[in-house]
Amino acid sequence: MGRVTERRRVLRIRDGAVSHRADTLVAEEPLEIRLNGKPLAITMRTPGDDFALAAGFLVSEGVLGSADELANIVYCAGATVDGSNTYNIVDVRLAPGTPLPDITLERNVYTTSSCGLCGKASLDAVRTTAHWPITDTPPVLVEPDLLAVLPDRLRAAQRVFDRTGGLHAAALFTPEGELIDVREDVGRHNAVDKLVGRALQQGELPLSGRILLVSGRASFELAQKAVMAGIPVLAAVSAPSSLAVDLADEAGLTLVGFLRGTSMNVYAGEQRIALRSAAGRA
Amino acid sequence: MGRVTERRRVLRIRDGAVSHRADTLVAEEPLEIRLNGKPLAITMRTPGDDFALAAGFLVSEGVLGSADELANIVYCAGATVDGSNTYNIVDVRLAPGTPLPDITLERNVYTTSSCGLCGKASLDAVRTTAHWPITDTPPVLVEPDLLAVLPDRLRAAQRVFDRTGGLHAAALFTPEGELIDVREDVGRHNAVDKLVGRALQQGELPLSGRILLVSGRASFELAQKAVMAGIPVLAAVSAPSSLAVDLADEAGLTLVGFLRGTSMNVYAGEQRIALRSAAGRA
Repeated sequence: MGRVTERRRVLRIRDGAVSHRADTLVAEEPLEIRLNGKPLAITMRTPGDDFALAAGFLVSEGVLGSADELANIVYCAGATVDGSNTYNIVDVRLAPGTPLPDITLERNVYTTSSCGLCGKASLDAVRTTAHWPITDTPPVLVEPDLLAVLPDRLRAAQRVFDRTGGLHAAALFTPEGELIDVREDVGRHNAVDKLVGRALQQGELPLSGRILLVSGRASFELAQKAVMAGIPVLAAVSAPSSLAVDLADEAGLTLVGFLRGTSMNVYAGEQRIALRSAAGRA
Repeated sequence: MGRVTERRRVLRIRDGAVSHRADTLVAEEPLEIRLNGKPLAITMRTPGDDFALAAGFLVSEGVLGSADELANIVYCAGATVDGSNTYNIVDVRLAPGTPLPDITLERNVYTTSSCGLCGKASLDAVRTTAHWPITDTPPVLVEPDLLAVLPDRLRAAQRVFDRTGGLHAAALFTPEGELIDVREDVGRHNAVDKLVGRALQQGELPLSGRILLVSGRASFELAQKAVMAGIPVLAAVSAPSSLAVDLADEAGLTLVGFLRGTSMNVYAGEQRIALRSAAGRA
């Protein structure tokens, strides 16, 4: 697409020195996701990996659980006044027999993941729409020392961030710390959806035996996406929210926050953190 | 409300030393915003200032422009199974004669700000729904040295961040650098909506002659909220997106990014940055 970054002229001020120069910015454009031809959601995203983004969004919302349920994804032309294709609208066609979500104005897609009544109801909504529980087949046991090196590996794999400073990143690792995939986006939720959607397309769901690392905070929404994809470990560089921790507790997700150097907090699912060696050194 | 933070038990790992202790987390709960009784949107937010959040959200969406257009805002009871009030649903009643937005399933509220066709159409949508242009009455001319001290003032005013590390912040300043208001929220857009909603309730819209500082990045959505509130200067600690810069250009908003120490980039509206003194020292 060539639209991951864009150039703009900027006035640069450094300790009183002023200059004009070109600057590279992260691109942001709306993406409308249609389901069987009907508008479902709009997200502001960084162009690229749009089909994976749409597929991953539908995994997070409980609509898709496997590649079999997906017929195809296409860009829609003709939605602008002049009939051109902006590459900002995708239509996802479900395979015959795949149930459509119940979408009404009162209960639109945004409400399936957080129904608006209380945090407890949001947790219930994730539980009832999850395609599979988080399993420990294969078992996942992660050393704190291994978690400690993952942020540097993520950072090294971030290509666009270095040019713009404006991208969130999400990456999948094996329990041995091998980087499997990394995605960058102006929206942290989009980066995770792109990872999950790619996995769905490749027939790799549920993502059991995987560690999801995110560059920022762990909100309810990110914990939800991990749970819906069957990921057993979510690690975040920054703080989690209360509802993210509650969801992790309820769904059996291991949630690590403030992962900085060899320091981290484990908020839920500590049975997957290999503590014996760490405690031995305490 | 007493729910801005919550306590959870956490496993703390520091250089191999392991301990359990209580940790303070930023609270996150869904808020359903209803308009004249009908569900309009759900946002995951930090409880508190909910009426201001709802009012500010409706300013951002072009529904509200002044306190006169607002009849009242109440918490809805009875939406849960047992009929209790979760304080997570608010109903905004417009004053008689205030036009309701056109909300259909195909064009729900999320589409008014980013219509899904292209970035250009999103810019058009903001222009057509804005209640007022950004004016320079009173004129705003800001010294870079003044901008440089604002992040520290914001940080000093952030009360919850120190305890949780999990909150975005947004603040309004005068051109002389006086802090007028600061709001914190698990969602950066909510923090801005709370500022703007409070201003609407106090009859202070449009916010001409004000600087909006945000603790993170400047997305399209945040630039849109600044424009819709009539704020002439938006400064962000981190990077802006391409569409945020485009909107700032089109709407006449001064957009400053990477505001760190005495370094900053001015992406749009540089006429409001007092360059003579700065250039003299270059």
